[in-house]
Amino acid sequence: MIVVMKSDATAEQTDHMVSQITSLGLTPQVIKGTHQTVIAALGEERSGLTEVLESGPGVEKVLPIMAPYKRASSELKSERTVVRALDLVIGGTRVAVIAGPCSVESEEQIVGLARQLKELGATGLRGGAFKPRTSPYSFQGHKEDGLKMLATARQETGLAIVTEVMAPEHVPLVAKYADVLQIGARNMQNYQLLQAVGDSGKPTMLKRGMSATIEEFLLAAEYILDRGNPHVMLCERGIRTYEEHTRFTLPLATVPYLQEKSHLPVVVDPSHGTGKARLVTPMCKAAIAAGADALIVEVHDDPEHAVSDGSQTITPTSFGQMMAMCRRVAEAVDRTM
Amino acid sequence: MIVVMKSDATAEQTDHMVSQITSLGLTPQVIKGTHQTVIAALGEERSGLTEVLESGPGVEKVLPIMAPYKRASSELKSERTVVRALDLVIGGTRVAVIAGPCSVESEEQIVGLARQLKELGATGLRGGAFKPRTSPYSFQGHKEDGLKMLATARQETGLAIVTEVMAPEHVPLVAKYADVLQIGARNMQNYQLLQAVGDSGKPTMLKRGMSATIEEFLLAAEYILDRGNPHVMLCERGIRTYEEHTRFTLPLATVPYLQEKSHLPVVVDPSHGTGKARLVTPMCKAAIAAGADALIVEVHDDPEHAVSDGSQTITPTSFGQMMAMCRRVAEAVDRTM
Amino acid sequence: MIVVMKSDATAEQTDHMVSQITSLGLTPQVIKGTHQTVIAALGEERSGLTEVLESGPGVEKVLPIMAPYKRASSELKSERTVVRALDLVIGGTRVAVIAGPCSVESEEQIVGLARQLKELGATGLRGGAFKPRTSPYSFQGHKEDGLKMLATARQETGLAIVTEVMAPEHVPLVAKYADVLQIGARNMQNYQLLQAVGDSGKPTMLKRGMSATIEEFLLAAEYILDRGNPHVMLCERGIRTYEEHTRFTLPLATVPYLQEKSHLPVVVDPSHGTGKARLVTPMCKAAIAAGADALIVEVHDDPEHAVSDGSQTITPTSFGQMMAMCRRVAEAVDRTM
Amino acid sequence: MIVVMKSDATAEQTDHMVSQITSLGLTPQVIKGTHQTVIAALGEERSGLTEVLESGPGVEKVLPIMAPYKRASSELKSERTVVRALDLVIGGTRVAVIAGPCSVESEEQIVGLARQLKELGATGLRGGAFKPRTSPYSFQGHKEDGLKMLATARQETGLAIVTEVMAPEHVPLVAKYADVLQIGARNMQNYQLLQAVGDSGKPTMLKRGMSATIEEFLLAAEYILDRGNPHVMLCERGIRTYEEHTRFTLPLATVPYLQEKSHLPVVVDPSHGTGKARLVTPMCKAAIAAGADALIVEVHDDPEHAVSDGSQTITPTSFGQMMAMCRRVAEAVDRTM
Repeated sequence: MIVVMKSDATAEQTDHMVSQITSLGLTPQVIKGTHQTVIAALGEERSGLTEVLESGPGVEKVLPIMAPYKRASSELKSERTVVRALDLVIGGTRVAVIAGPCSVESEEQIVGLARQLKELGATGLRGGAFKPRTSPYSFQGHKEDGLKMLATARQETGLAIVTEVMAPEHVPLVAKYADVLQIGARNMQNYQLLQAVGDSGKPTMLKRGMSATIEEFLLAAEYILDRGNPHVMLCERGIRTYEEHTRFTLPLATVPYLQEKSHLPVVVDPSHGTGKARLVTPMCKAAIAAGADALIVEVHDDPEHAVSDGSQTITPTSFGQMMAMCRRVAEAVDRTM
Repeated sequence: MIVVMKSDATAEQTDHMVSQITSLGLTPQVIKGTHQTVIAALGEERSGLTEVLESGPGVEKVLPIMAPYKRASSELKSERTVVRALDLVIGGTRVAVIAGPCSVESEEQIVGLARQLKELGATGLRGGAFKPRTSPYSFQGHKEDGLKMLATARQETGLAIVTEVMAPEHVPLVAKYADVLQIGARNMQNYQLLQAVGDSGKPTMLKRGMSATIEEFLLAAEYILDRGNPHVMLCERGIRTYEEHTRFTLPLATVPYLQEKSHLPVVVDPSHGTGKARLVTPMCKAAIAAGADALIVEVHDDPEHAVSDGSQTITPTSFGQMMAMCRRVAEAVDRTM
Repeated sequence: MIVVMKSDATAEQTDHMVSQITSLGLTPQVIKGTHQTVIAALGEERSGLTEVLESGPGVEKVLPIMAPYKRASSELKSERTVVRALDLVIGGTRVAVIAGPCSVESEEQIVGLARQLKELGATGLRGGAFKPRTSPYSFQGHKEDGLKMLATARQETGLAIVTEVMAPEHVPLVAKYADVLQIGARNMQNYQLLQAVGDSGKPTMLKRGMSATIEEFLLAAEYILDRGNPHVMLCERGIRTYEEHTRFTLPLATVPYLQEKSHLPVVVDPSHGTGKARLVTPMCKAAIAAGADALIVEVHDDPEHAVSDGSQTITPTSFGQMMAMCRRVAEAVDRTM
Repeated sequence: MIVVMKSDATAEQTDHMVSQITSLGLTPQVIKGTHQTVIAALGEERSGLTEVLESGPGVEKVLPIMAPYKRASSELKSERTVVRALDLVIGGTRVAVIAGPCSVESEEQIVGLARQLKELGATGLRGGAFKPRTSPYSFQGHKEDGLKMLATARQETGLAIVTEVMAPEHVPLVAKYADVLQIGARNMQNYQLLQAVGDSGKPTMLKRGMSATIEEFLLAAEYILDRGNPHVMLCERGIRTYEEHTRFTLPLATVPYLQEKSHLPVVVDPSHGTGKARLVTPMCKAAIAAGADALIVEVHDDPEHAVSDGSQTITPTSFGQMMAMCRRVAEAVDRTM
């Protein structure tokens, strides 16, 4: 850390900070500049130290040097992580595609749709059984019945099941049926849930919180990794900004940036990222060109009658067209799909 | 709802939407404008209907008319809610003050501090026993031991205990010791937690999520109210914006706006809202002038050695000065403190 | 417009608004809903009417229906606009590339660089002669001398010159040397400048303001178009959000969205959009996959010694590699480059 | 500055940066940490150096230490600036109030309103003659005729005239009639305009850009100060965030923060900052409690028929009530009004 003293800080204040840094187990090194003094604090930058030092007398600000995440960092592990669940392989040369409805509505719906998606090239099936809804009056999902329908769809198609888990106490139940546990954007900092999913050892797709920084996102992944579960993929699903013509703003520079800072594979969700069916296909193409390892896309036979998220859902026909277009883009960036 | 058709929508598409609106139990009324047709859909605007209608053919956009929250709305209940826990009364003429450290560190610390805060005018004691931390490597709180220390502090001072609960399964434990359950910003949309707290019937302070809209905030309160727990207070604690000189941006217009839209009392947290000890007192004064029903403030005997959030924590001496200044502002807006 | 009355609005208030709407030259149509009354105001939605109606007694809110821009709208002109300046053609099948340094530093620099860029496939040369700088102490550009150096580079290479104009009174001077006038993000709502550029009739690249909505962006274009200058291209260069790992957040969904709403061609600037040289190439690829009509990229022989924006600038070698990769992506989306 | 090298930077790269720092006229000091090396670069932190150093080989990031503004800084000038124009004194013990319509509509309107405002305690009269409008189809102001009407209002009441100037070439004209030149939020980084206003020597109210950081805001003030015009006041008028229930988000922590960093007085604009007439009075009270030196408020005899900004405009009656309430708050923070 670098502790920047105020320009009018006294020698006593600087001495005090030097002692404080030493007492925290770090090695201070004082640098007297033209206008102000800064103190380098050498050693392990434990979380929370910045705040402690910032409240010292005469301190202007404290600048951290090291990234606070370790296990998620590409510095610790340079080999890229590949997450596998049945035929769904995320992080390899092939761009994986997870598709399916926002909510599982019926066995007939999900099995029929799964067959079409499999045919069109998906290797993962998404579908909500437990649904986090902004309003208590919205459809909350079929819960365990929904999970059973997803399991039937897997049995019929071989697609790996990706579904959300919303509470620590549901982890065993969801893990029984699902191949990949999804942690939704609203729960990215639900630490009990992160730990429970970490303990489960199951492949996990962690969605970025809608106002999370990259550092917070990787620290959330760190919670899972720290419990001994290395099967983590990161999902960019759009952030909240002042923009109003899309539901969220989808920042694709996240893809190469995360791949530089972390060894974990990166998934992009253009359905939530835009909230508009018409924008899904162009953003799928762009995500692949930016280097995404996988896509997750909302597809429904009849979006107009979907019980949730109809406006951002594409039909199987559009999905097939999207796949054909994306395959060409994937090849243009030396990947398959 | 108002369904706006595209300017090139066909008569068939408009007819289709009229049928669709009817089949959803609403009454359509077609309005032919100069450039485009709009259809008013009269009746109860259930959550999710907007999305369904938006995916219809020829639809440009759908504009909701009614607020989606009911029980939190001042339209349903015009009398203002007052939440009470021991001598802590939030929503009356007196501006209430909840103060205490970010984390409970030891019994000695919390009891000593509680005595000073009581003396200086606080009626609630805050202190974290279960701590949500961005990094898995940060101090996570003393958990049940911390709750016991808080209970001792209450016994010694009579201050009502306000402390965070982070997971549904902890609700019974925390409710055993605390007078007010706090739901943190990161958990504002942890729906299982909201329901569990709703079921507990305990007074609850719900913090605004750091990127939540007012509608989402009131819908989160609705989850608690809908479970039959009316003792809800709303806490504005700052939102995430591009500003970087403060930890968050504290938007005080939220106070009168929430008081207009809802009957629930409004608390302001200038400690998290600014992240800087020097800005806490001016923002306390401003919050009261804006009409806040209560303040929640981080206070520690020795912020420089606090285990968390030192940089935004004030000392008991500063707290006493703040109270004296705020009392004058409270009187200037016809309140006591 | 749709005027939504409050649920407790009186019949007198509704009648008043009906008269008010009539007096504004619109036709009112009253719709009595279950909970509240709404009034459709049919006719031309002139700018400012929303605000006027919103301040009426008993009015909850006013919802506009029509887009406020006309000439920029794809509804008025369905044929896509192609902007041409020498061999720089923006809006056709070929993805155009404008490249060059942030600032023009010397004739030798700009001519040498222009030759390399031409060789590598650029058809436009960017370079700042008038530089808008956040600090008054930063290099402000070589001004007319810089323009002359750009003109020499054009003479030597045939590249079209794209350069920023910062003030209405500079328009004649810059127009004398440049082929395309650039309006920078900070000046997107400098209306005198927009009008002066509109009057010049020169091809113009309008950059999106760093916190402009799409509606504001298209209304800024409308200022230029309204003066009789149809040669306008829109440039997405990133918006300001809470993200801090990139200089701005580059929202590529803007590309297909703008192309749907407007007939004007869309350029993407991944250099400013990310602020990091390492992210430029992936975002160039993503922009093309999203459908961009052109790229504008900062290139410098020696970014470490560039007088401005070095950290987001790539070398001619990297530029050549980027072009090779992007050509493949362009082909994959049925374009050339 | 602190140059942080990557953890895998080579000794050659560190040596290169040491030379580079030296060649820039700074003194390097190398600090070898546990995981990575950092280099302190001692000396004057000129604008642009950060960018230059960031593009060096093996560099992870560059952390600036010093604030880039000088003349606006409270470090350079500890005595607080007081700006005076007739009886309008901004920065003293008395909280000043500038009030008036968004646009000057007629002489009768502005003179009548000015009389009422003077009576109720305003010392400054605002009113737009040149209006920056998002749409080219909106009312653009009466221009010089409007200025003349304002001058008449001054003659009748003695109120100081505060009005916006939008282009460098209008500065002489506006300066002829106005007592205070206003630079609007959209022009905060219109550097030609800042310089022209700086050259005029007139008292100036600089409004914060809607997505400007505090550093950018103070650097914009620096442009004016650097031209030898010390009569600058800063106006917080709200920033653009994801919030949608108010027109902008009004961050009052800006007030004490600016007063700490700068000697310039701080004005708050709750009319633009909220966009809603009902929120203006509470935010006026809050601004004064936060320490604002002045308020600027939109007032119109008949907001429903105002040609612009009606929804955020209060009536003279409301203004009088606001003044009475604010006077009490001002006294509670040891100021008059």
